[in-house]
Amino acid sequence: MRIAIIGGLAAGPAAAAEAKRRAPDAEVVLFEEGPNISVGTCEMPYLIGGVIDPSVDLVVVSPAEMERTRGVEVRIRHRVTALDPARGRLTVEALDFGSTREEAFDRFVLATGARARRLGVDGEEAAGVFTVRDLVDTEQIRRWLDTEDVRHVVVAGGGYIGLEMAEAMRERGLRATILDPKGRVLGGAVACEASDLMDRAVRGAGVLVRPERATEVLTDDRGRVRAVRTDRGEIVGCQMLIVSVGVEPRAELAEAAGLRLGDMGGVTVDDEMRTSHRHVWACGDLVQIPRAPDGRRVLWPLATTARRTARVAARNVAKPGSDRFRPFAGAVAVRAFGVEVGSVGLSMQRAKGAGLDAFATDIRHVSRTKAFPGASPIDVRLVVERRTGRILGGQVVGAEGAALRANVLVPLVIRGSTVRELAEDLDLVYNPPVAPAVDPLKVAASRALRSL
Amino acid sequence: MRIAIIGGLAAGPAAAAEAKRRAPDAEVVLFEEGPNISVGTCEMPYLIGGVIDPSVDLVVVSPAEMERTRGVEVRIRHRVTALDPARGRLTVEALDFGSTREEAFDRFVLATGARARRLGVDGEEAAGVFTVRDLVDTEQIRRWLDTEDVRHVVVAGGGYIGLEMAEAMRERGLRATILDPKGRVLGGAVACEASDLMDRAVRGAGVLVRPERATEVLTDDRGRVRAVRTDRGEIVGCQMLIVSVGVEPRAELAEAAGLRLGDMGGVTVDDEMRTSHRHVWACGDLVQIPRAPDGRRVLWPLATTARRTARVAARNVAKPGSDRFRPFAGAVAVRAFGVEVGSVGLSMQRAKGAGLDAFATDIRHVSRTKAFPGASPIDVRLVVERRTGRILGGQVVGAEGAALRANVLVPLVIRGSTVRELAEDLDLVYNPPVAPAVDPLKVAASRALRSL
Ligand SMILES: Cc1cc2nc3c(=O)[nH]c(=O)nc-3n(C[C@H](O)[C@H](O)[C@H](O)COP(=O)(O)OP(=O)(O)OC[C@H]3O[C@@H](n4cnc5c(N)ncnc54)[C@H](O)[C@@H]3O)c2cc1C
Ligand SMILES: Cc1cc2nc3c(=O)[nH]c(=O)nc-3n(C[C@H](O)[C@H](O)[C@H](O)COP(=O)(O)OP(=O)(O)OC[C@H]3O[C@@H](n4cnc5c(N)ncnc54)[C@H](O)[C@@H]3O)c2cc1C
Repeated sequence: MRIAIIGGLAAGPAAAAEAKRRAPDAEVVLFEEGPNISVGTCEMPYLIGGVIDPSVDLVVVSPAEMERTRGVEVRIRHRVTALDPARGRLTVEALDFGSTREEAFDRFVLATGARARRLGVDGEEAAGVFTVRDLVDTEQIRRWLDTEDVRHVVVAGGGYIGLEMAEAMRERGLRATILDPKGRVLGGAVACEASDLMDRAVRGAGVLVRPERATEVLTDDRGRVRAVRTDRGEIVGCQMLIVSVGVEPRAELAEAAGLRLGDMGGVTVDDEMRTSHRHVWACGDLVQIPRAPDGRRVLWPLATTARRTARVAARNVAKPGSDRFRPFAGAVAVRAFGVEVGSVGLSMQRAKGAGLDAFATDIRHVSRTKAFPGASPIDVRLVVERRTGRILGGQVVGAEGAALRANVLVPLVIRGSTVRELAEDLDLVYNPPVAPAVDPLKVAASRALRSL
Repeated sequence: MRIAIIGGLAAGPAAAAEAKRRAPDAEVVLFEEGPNISVGTCEMPYLIGGVIDPSVDLVVVSPAEMERTRGVEVRIRHRVTALDPARGRLTVEALDFGSTREEAFDRFVLATGARARRLGVDGEEAAGVFTVRDLVDTEQIRRWLDTEDVRHVVVAGGGYIGLEMAEAMRERGLRATILDPKGRVLGGAVACEASDLMDRAVRGAGVLVRPERATEVLTDDRGRVRAVRTDRGEIVGCQMLIVSVGVEPRAELAEAAGLRLGDMGGVTVDDEMRTSHRHVWACGDLVQIPRAPDGRRVLWPLATTARRTARVAARNVAKPGSDRFRPFAGAVAVRAFGVEVGSVGLSMQRAKGAGLDAFATDIRHVSRTKAFPGASPIDVRLVVERRTGRILGGQVVGAEGAALRANVLVPLVIRGSTVRELAEDLDLVYNPPVAPAVDPLKVAASRALRSL
C-alpha cells in the first residue's frame, strides 16, 4: 500500500508518522512544497522578538530524521499540483528541477493547511510588508529588521498572533501600533470579550490600538513601505507592516480534485477525517471539524486540533474505521505584556451566531488569597445555555494562573457539564499561594447558577 | 424553627449563613468555644512566616458582622458539652461566666471539626511545643518567636502543613529540620509519590529532612523545649517544636449523643449530610464523605470539602431532601520553597489500600515550550485502573503551573474518565509561554494508554 501525505508543516508530519506506525508495511511519502517540514510555527513570534534564543532551530524533525526514525519518505520542495483520487494519481512538481510528473498512490491524506489572509489593498506587495505563517516569513522579517532602519511597526489585526508580534516588536525596542477595526485586541479565536486587563496591559506597554482598518500601503521611491493609510483617512508612518488578519484554508487542490468543501471553505470530512472521496482523508487547518457545544463543523486553525485530526486521519488511512474524532472544546491561550488569556468553547458572540439561547456571567476575583503577596485580579466570563445551564464556553484573563485555569473548562465543555456541577461538585484546589478559597471559576459558576 | 450550629471556624459559619438564607424564618444560633469565628486558618503559616503582612486580620467575618449581614445569632466562648437529639436539647457552657444551661432546638448541625494530633511522648507539654490549628495557636507561636531566642525549629511531620511551617521558619531566617519517618515530605493528603522536585527544593533551602520520629521532648530548667530525642536515639537541639502529624475528628460530642461513627472515627452521614439521628446533620472535618474513585467514605479534612459539606448540610437542615453531596475528587495543593504540588484523587498507595487494581505512570515533561525562557520540569504521576483505564488520581509537581494543572483532573476523576479521553479528546491549550505543544498531563495519559 502506498500512502501520500500532502503538506508537511504540522498535521502532515504527525499524520505520516502515525500512518507508518499503524501500517508498518505501507510506503508513506510526505510532500511539502517549502524547504522545511515539522516546524514549531507557534514559536516564531518569540524567535523574532529575541525572547527565544535566535540560534534555536524551530525545525522539530528534519527530513533526514523523519526518514530514519519514522520510516517516512520525505520530498521537500515538491508541490502537488493535482490530485486524481479516482485514478489514484498525484501530479507533483519538483521545484528545484522544474520537472513535473505523475505518481500512483492507493490512499491520500491532505494536510495543505491554511494561508495567511491578505489585506487586499493597494501597495500590499511593497517591501517591508509581511505575513507570519512559516519559517520563510520569519527569516524575511528578521532580515528586514536587521538590515533596515525600522523604528515603528504597524500590525494589522489584533488577534492573538498580531498581539504576539506587537510584543515581539516591543521586545526589540521598536514602537508598535495595532490597527483593529474593533479598537480592541482578541476578538477572534482567543476570545476576551469582557475583560479590559489585556487591553490595559497593551496600552501600558506603549502599544497603541487604533480602531481603524488599513486601506492602502504607501511606499517610498525604493518601493518600501513608508506608511499605511486607514479607513479614517489617517496616514500612519511606519517602516514595516505585519499583516495578521486571520487565515483561510488552502483548499484549491481538494476543490480541483472534486472533493466537497464546507460552508467556511474548508474541506468536509466525517468523524474518521475522510473526505467525500473514500480514498482521501484530510486534517489540520484545512478541514472543518465539529465543536463540542453545538456540533457545528467549523475551521479551527490551531496546532492542538491539527495534531488530533492528523492522528485520526492517519489511523483511518492505515485501517479505515479504526478511530474517530470527538468534538473539540476549542481551548486557546495567549500570554503577552504580562497578561494571560485562556479561552475555551464558544464566546458570547459565537453562541449568539450559532442561534443558542445563551447568557454571559462576568466576575472579577483574585489569582490567590487576597492577602497573599502577588495576588492579582482574575476576570472570568462564562457563557451558559439558559435552558440547561450547560457551560458553552469561558474566558479567563489575568496576570497569573489564567490560561491554565481555562483548561479546567475543556472537559466540562466537551461533556456538556452545567454551571451547577462547576459551582458545587468540583473541589478545585485551595492553597493561599496558588488559589483563593473559592476558585475564580467556581465564583463565576455560582454567580451564573443564581441567574438561571 | 430553631437551628443550632455547633462549631464556628469554617464549616459552621458557612452552614449557618446558608441555613439562614434557605430558611429565613428560622432562628439560627452558632456556638463556638473559641474567641473567633470564620478564620482563614489556611493562611496562618504565611502570617507566622511574615509572608502575609502581620497586620492582616485572618478573621473573615466577625461575630457582629455575621449577626448583622447574615442574621445568624453568634455565641463565641460557648462550649456545647452535651447534645440530646431525642429531647431536642443542648447543654451549653458559657466559658466567660462559668455557667451552664440547657437550650431547646429543633435541628442541629455539628461542625466541631478536627483537632491536631499530638505525638503522645514525654515532655510534649513543655513550653515551646505547638500545634497549628487555630488563631490562638498562631498567636502563641508568634509570641514565642518574638520573645524567645529561637534559632532552630524542629517540625515533626512532613505533610503539607509541616512543609508550610518549615518554610515559614526559613522566611523568618531560622534553621528548620523536619522529622518524618519516611525521610521525605508529602506522603499524606497532598501526595507526591514519584517526584523528587519538592524534596530537592526543601534540601536546597537548607531544611534537613530526617527519617526519624520524635520519641521524647527534652526541656531546660525553666520547662522550655531544648531538644527532641528521636527513635534513632539522636538528640536534636531546638528552641521550638512544631507538631504537625495530622488531625483527628472531634467526635466526642457526637459519640456521647449516640450518633453513629465511621471506621475512621468521623461521624457517619448520608448524602444529605444527615447523621444517624434524623434531626442532626454534620459537616466539615468531622464527617466521613464519599470519594469519587471508589465511593469509600473517608475523612478528608480540607477547607474546600468543609465548605461543600456545610452547604449540603445547611440546605437539608432548612429543607430535608433539598440537596445531596456528590463524591469529591480530593484535590489539594501546596507551594513551598518555589515548588508546587497539586494532587487529586487516589495516590498509588491509597489505590492499593482500597484494593483497586491500579498502576502508575510517571513522566517528566516541561511547563512551557522547551526553548522558552523559564521553562522548567513538570513531573506527572497518573494512577490508573488497569481494567478500565479510568483515572483514579494524579500528582503534578513543578516550579510553575503544577497546582493549577492538577485541577484539570478534578472533573476527570469525578466522572470516571479514562486516560484515552485525556490523551486523545481533550484539546488543552498550547501556547509557548504557557504550555508546551502537548501538555504534561496529556503526555502522561498517552504513556499510560500505551501500557494498558
Ligand atoms: C505565528 C503563529 C503562531 C501560532 N501559535 C499557535 C499557538 O500558540 N497554539 C496553537 O495551537 N496554534 C498556533 N498556531 C497555529 C498552528 O501553527 C497551525 O494550526 C498549524 O501550523 C496547522 O498545521 P497544518 O499542518 O494543518 O497547516 P500548515 O501549518 O499551514 O501547513 C501546511 C503545509 O502544507 C504545505 N502545502 C500546501 N499546499 C501544498 C501542496 N499543494 N503541495 C505541497 N505542499 C503543500 C504548505 O507549504 C505548508 O507547509 C500558530 C500559527 C502561527 C502562524
Ligand atoms: C495550618 C493549616 C493550613 C491549612 N491549609 C489548607 C489549605 O491550603 N487548603 C485547604 O483546603 N484546607 C486547608 N486546611 C484545612 C482547613 O483549615 C480545615 O479543613 C477547616 O478548617 C475545617 O473546618 P471545620 O469547620 O470543619 O473544622 P475546624 O476548623 O476544626 O473548626 C471546628 C470549630 O469547632 C469548635 N468546636 C469544637 N467542638 C466544640 C464544642 N463542643 N462547642 C463549641 N465549639 C466547638 C472548635 O473550637 C473549632 O473552632 C488547613 C488547616 C490548617 C490548620
